[in-house]
Amino acid sequence: MTTPTNAETPAEILAAARRDHAALVERGLSLNLTRGKPSARQLDLSADLLSLPGDRHTAADGTDCRNYAGAPQGLLELREIFADLLQVPVEQLIAAGNASLELMHDCLAGAFLGTLPGAEGRWADAERVAFLCPAPGYDRHFTLCERFGIEMIPVPMTDQGPDMDVVERLVSSDAGVKGIWCVPKYSNPDGVSYSDETVQRLASMETAAPDFRIFWDNAYAVHHLTDEEVEIADLLAACAESGNPDRAFVFGSTSKVTFAGAGVAFLGSSPANVRWYLERAGARSIGPDKINQLRHALFLKDAEGVRAHMRGHRELLQPKFEAVERILSKQLAGTGLATWSTPKGGYFVRLDVLDGCAREVVRRAAEAGIALTPAGATHPYGEDPQDRTIRIAPSFPELDALEEAIEGLAVCVRLVGAEKLVADQG
Amino acid sequence: MTTPTNAETPAEILAAARRDHAALVERGLSLNLTRGKPSARQLDLSADLLSLPGDRHTAADGTDCRNYAGAPQGLLELREIFADLLQVPVEQLIAAGNASLELMHDCLAGAFLGTLPGAEGRWADAERVAFLCPAPGYDRHFTLCERFGIEMIPVPMTDQGPDMDVVERLVSSDAGVKGIWCVPKYSNPDGVSYSDETVQRLASMETAAPDFRIFWDNAYAVHHLTDEEVEIADLLAACAESGNPDRAFVFGSTSKVTFAGAGVAFLGSSPANVRWYLERAGARSIGPDKINQLRHALFLKDAEGVRAHMRGHRELLQPKFEAVERILSKQLAGTGLATWSTPKGGYFVRLDVLDGCAREVVRRAAEAGIALTPAGATHPYGEDPQDRTIRIAPSFPELDALEEAIEGLAVCVRLVGAEKLVADQG
Repeated sequence: MTTPTNAETPAEILAAARRDHAALVERGLSLNLTRGKPSARQLDLSADLLSLPGDRHTAADGTDCRNYAGAPQGLLELREIFADLLQVPVEQLIAAGNASLELMHDCLAGAFLGTLPGAEGRWADAERVAFLCPAPGYDRHFTLCERFGIEMIPVPMTDQGPDMDVVERLVSSDAGVKGIWCVPKYSNPDGVSYSDETVQRLASMETAAPDFRIFWDNAYAVHHLTDEEVEIADLLAACAESGNPDRAFVFGSTSKVTFAGAGVAFLGSSPANVRWYLERAGARSIGPDKINQLRHALFLKDAEGVRAHMRGHRELLQPKFEAVERILSKQLAGTGLATWSTPKGGYFVRLDVLDGCAREVVRRAAEAGIALTPAGATHPYGEDPQDRTIRIAPSFPELDALEEAIEGLAVCVRLVGAEKLVADQG
Repeated sequence: MTTPTNAETPAEILAAARRDHAALVERGLSLNLTRGKPSARQLDLSADLLSLPGDRHTAADGTDCRNYAGAPQGLLELREIFADLLQVPVEQLIAAGNASLELMHDCLAGAFLGTLPGAEGRWADAERVAFLCPAPGYDRHFTLCERFGIEMIPVPMTDQGPDMDVVERLVSSDAGVKGIWCVPKYSNPDGVSYSDETVQRLASMETAAPDFRIFWDNAYAVHHLTDEEVEIADLLAACAESGNPDRAFVFGSTSKVTFAGAGVAFLGSSPANVRWYLERAGARSIGPDKINQLRHALFLKDAEGVRAHMRGHRELLQPKFEAVERILSKQLAGTGLATWSTPKGGYFVRLDVLDGCAREVVRRAAEAGIALTPAGATHPYGEDPQDRTIRIAPSFPELDALEEAIEGLAVCVRLVGAEKLVADQG
């Protein structure tokens, strides 16, 4: 593989990149960087869960977790573990099923078919329901919007979070804007953590819609990759202090703490929102799987137990993120063909290539057996207007496979970038 | 306690019942017959689940159950166990979360916010959505209707299932009637199993609504109490044969097989309905808790394993139902004050007292420390027009406590019945 230097012309870079890409295709790789899945070794960290709760079946308050009834809000001992970690008072925290995405869906479904605290009616009857979508963002948030027929309005991301000037202008002028999606810590895919000022402005801004909601998907609350364990400001408290107590729904889960899709999800909010949610949830279900919550409480023990457990994840993840950084730097630094994030936590690296090149890079990588998240998936409606952003998910492959995939990806970035530069010259 | 004889006058019966009730209140009991919960000893039958899957975490097809992805329809090995038991072809059976009530809710939510196969539009936009509610029935079905603003139309129950003449008349003449709730085997609270003719008529009847759905809550499919293990006709097959393949949603769960609220729920339907459901569910969640499904598959092993396990439940439940029958017969037979069901399976006994007396019986029992399901809960809007039906749930208390509660209940039935007879004479 050839490392480009600034001395080369675009035509020379292109010729070298074509040779490299041909050689790459020749190798017939089969590598997958698409989804933010924990690796098998990360999952092994929670192996003890597979035989818990063992001979226990009662919660701390004596509830028989094997039976109906008791703990409709989830087991207290598990909520106590996650209250501080998610910045939610324990009495305002719900421990629920196996996916925070379900909680987000159900909050939307409740807003459409019921009446949110502060709302004038059902969203199903509203003339228009739009959400602000900081972009790039998480494709499954956008899918939920499509499912509910919610109009998506992209908002640019900055290194402090969404561009708050844009956000404030939109929410203050348009009562059809009912919400905003946020991944406030180690965001997907940027790795950005919201600044205190961003959180404060979100909490205190004037909104034309009385039932405006912040969907605060704190998916990576404890998912650090460096010694700098980033803290963000407490949104629920800021909303309450700003006189907007019902503005925020806070989500979290153990999917990337214990088992992905077999963990416990959390919803935190104001007392009024929590009552509203539980009343709806009480019609839908007799309650969450209390055995799985007991299992998690016994396994994680306390907040410090979670932090210690997450250091185990970091040990496995950090070398992978470092490899991505190292290879991208070696292959692409100084070429002007790409920039990328160096996240301090979370599950993703954002790679930005030359405008108009992301889809082609993904296509060329697929030719070489390297599966990437579809370009555009990071944007509402699958449309990245600059066709620039690629999401890299380094967690799942083993380190050597990851290195091979990133080396290959760099070849594709050089190839497509050089093609563009040569075409632009011509 | 005095056993009445036909020779006594209502005034004499009343005087004796008042003495018995006073003595009962004096005892200061605290007994609960409200909900159909398994007893602790029943739950002990599934103790092995508490340390499963142990050192296993892969499904039969190699899926790592600890991670995202794979088996969006649920684990095949678990669906194979329940396909025959629920009368659903395995490829049309979904294994999902911990509560079939959630699946019912989500089918309704999908019908309101999306478009069912065969529907002309969203139910949210329909002028009127009504459901037929065979009554007495299951209060949580009725609660779901209230939640969604679905009008409930009561239909009388017969010993063959709902009165099909009434059902056919209503569904054929009214396009606003979009569905019917059915508990087809060992119904809640009657213990009635639908006759083959009832099933056939449900499957083949003409409906004015093109998107009419049968919500077939087969909650007690394997929950026998006698050697006569009742079989009902196969609704899905009958619907398909009648040219109405998309008419039925079949629900089931292991809540009263393994752990209540910590089991696995199932949805079976036509291929088109299953695709419709999974497409919606795929936006809401990355998939069900596969570890809990693996745990259940390893524990139950196969359909015969479920049947054997249910015989263990029967051993614990049958003496309780026999006690109810024995005490009610001894205390109330020949009095003309009550009739009751003698179910061959399921979780409930239906006790019918004199018209206008059910609420008062429940109140008098509460005075004596015996908690019963609120009278009326078995009917839409909590209104039993004859104020006659009381649901007895014998499963949870230990046998001696149950006997005490039923003895006390019989006292209350005699007291309130005699009060009515005396008042009617006066």
